[in-house]
Amino acid sequence: MQEIIVRADRLHEFTRSLCKSTGLSSVNAELMAKLLVQTDLRGVHSHGTRALPGYLNQILNGSLNTEPNLRIITESKSSAVIDGDNGIGHIASSFAMETAISKAKSTGIGAVGVNNAGHFGAAACYSIMATLDNMIGFSTTNTGNPTLVPPGGAVPVTANNAMSYALPTGDSHPIVLDIACGVSSWGKVGTLRMYGKDVPEGWLLDESGNPSQDPNHGPWMVPAGEARGYGLALIMGILAGPLVGGMMSCVKTGSSSEHFFIAINIESFTDFDSYVDQIKQGIKHIHNAKTQDDITQVYLPGEIEWNNYDEWIESGIPIHVDHLRNLESIANKLDISICWEW
Amino acid sequence: MQEIIVRADRLHEFTRSLCKSTGLSSVNAELMAKLLVQTDLRGVHSHGTRALPGYLNQILNGSLNTEPNLRIITESKSSAVIDGDNGIGHIASSFAMETAISKAKSTGIGAVGVNNAGHFGAAACYSIMATLDNMIGFSTTNTGNPTLVPPGGAVPVTANNAMSYALPTGDSHPIVLDIACGVSSWGKVGTLRMYGKDVPEGWLLDESGNPSQDPNHGPWMVPAGEARGYGLALIMGILAGPLVGGMMSCVKTGSSSEHFFIAINIESFTDFDSYVDQIKQGIKHIHNAKTQDDITQVYLPGEIEWNNYDEWIESGIPIHVDHLRNLESIANKLDISICWEW
Repeated sequence: MQEIIVRADRLHEFTRSLCKSTGLSSVNAELMAKLLVQTDLRGVHSHGTRALPGYLNQILNGSLNTEPNLRIITESKSSAVIDGDNGIGHIASSFAMETAISKAKSTGIGAVGVNNAGHFGAAACYSIMATLDNMIGFSTTNTGNPTLVPPGGAVPVTANNAMSYALPTGDSHPIVLDIACGVSSWGKVGTLRMYGKDVPEGWLLDESGNPSQDPNHGPWMVPAGEARGYGLALIMGILAGPLVGGMMSCVKTGSSSEHFFIAINIESFTDFDSYVDQIKQGIKHIHNAKTQDDITQVYLPGEIEWNNYDEWIESGIPIHVDHLRNLESIANKLDISICWEW
Repeated sequence: MQEIIVRADRLHEFTRSLCKSTGLSSVNAELMAKLLVQTDLRGVHSHGTRALPGYLNQILNGSLNTEPNLRIITESKSSAVIDGDNGIGHIASSFAMETAISKAKSTGIGAVGVNNAGHFGAAACYSIMATLDNMIGFSTTNTGNPTLVPPGGAVPVTANNAMSYALPTGDSHPIVLDIACGVSSWGKVGTLRMYGKDVPEGWLLDESGNPSQDPNHGPWMVPAGEARGYGLALIMGILAGPLVGGMMSCVKTGSSSEHFFIAINIESFTDFDSYVDQIKQGIKHIHNAKTQDDITQVYLPGEIEWNNYDEWIESGIPIHVDHLRNLESIANKLDISICWEW
């Protein structure tokens, strides 16, 4: 058996305890638990609690600050840049999206960057935040060293940067697109590795530029849609890069990340109820669209993940045993009890 | 011979004369000439003067207003929506991006939508405008009826919407990404049709969902990167759709288009010279990156188009004879002399 079912409320409490015991404040420990368990519930384990031992070990070995002193280093009516003070990326990023939302409330749109912070987990965490205030959210990040090989190139020149949009739909889950600019994400490659599966053809390249299906050794990836994914990756790495005081990933040194967020206040552009009416008509049409013979329905971006969420919040989250073993290892180190039974 | 070389300055004057003779003001005729010839110079003929006869015939038959009365219908410090008054999309879109730039100057970022307007040509026209003010530009549009078939679907549910980013680089051409969300654009399919070529495998589907390579009869297209392109197309159609008072393309009736623009003022986020320094380091690295054996260099997004521009502004633009015959036909109708020799 590869998976164990873990209750979401227990995983939340467990995550919170682990974070608190490494020195995070109650507020930040609660934030981490909320974002990581929400991400697990949407089935994106690679960017949820599976990433937690990595973050906590960075805190324990002093390479990330436990309680960053977030500081707005430049600001105008609709924009800001925040120094993440080398803390966990989620903390600075949540503050940045809150700041963007607050600015968008008074001016129609807000854009806030973060530099000098750690990895921020799933990009969707922050775009979704905006939808709770009836706004459209956008988030992107510079994921670090180059791994995407551009068209015609023999070496990578951009990181496999993520970008996410989330759009409110009224009383149902938001439409959520959360994509890497490569044909897949490194998180998905990690999941295939964990489940002992080969990587699909056409994703990875080895250092000689030859196709690879070995999840243990790409080490490079092909951009989604060739020039399209390469272009988007490069540009996301400029928004979450030189625009906010960082470097481009092809010349980057050091491990700190930059992030970039936009909140668009729908009410500043149009009547919110009219927006929702139009969205609902579109969703109905898409849900009723004719499918291929072996397919039950056409999904909205993010809908399969919300179906996981709705099911697993009731029944518990299926989590791979290797993922749980890594959580157990950090829990033992911090003297916290695990929240599942082997 | 399929192509004739036409001097850019002559094509500009010819375009301006055609537009003026259908009743456009001098200012708007000059604007159209500038945007369409710039697009031809970048090699994107499908969205340059090749589209002009279509626009002018719409004006002549009264389905587009000659001189639209542009009106800001809602506005806040950093946002606005403009009623394009059923005029040529380029006119409302240029005004919208100017408005976004002006707002970004004082607040850091500006976002402006357009509804009730015609086709806006090449998305890059507007994103590039922002770079002239040291800003990052973004533009998107809702190109009309659905033609992209989503993963698992048997019918199209989104239009093949375009999106463009342009980023200043200091003293050289901006980085410009201008992409359709499908594996290609309908404009490129039109170009293949004109040159009597088959469409590459994997682009088109017929009404039974079978692959097609016939440029005369798709009539549907596959999204770029499957769920990625589908998601982006859907979301671009909401930004340039319900967000600005329009409909989603899957339920759209009528032919008017919506457009959406963002300008990001780099100086509000970081020192512009530092931004340029970082961009230049990145560009140098990319230009020096190792290539595949048969490839001379890795290009930036939009760089091949700027190379066309730099060459053709001196030597003239190679234009397909069918494209010129269509221009001649509208020129005859308007009693304007053509600017090339057969």
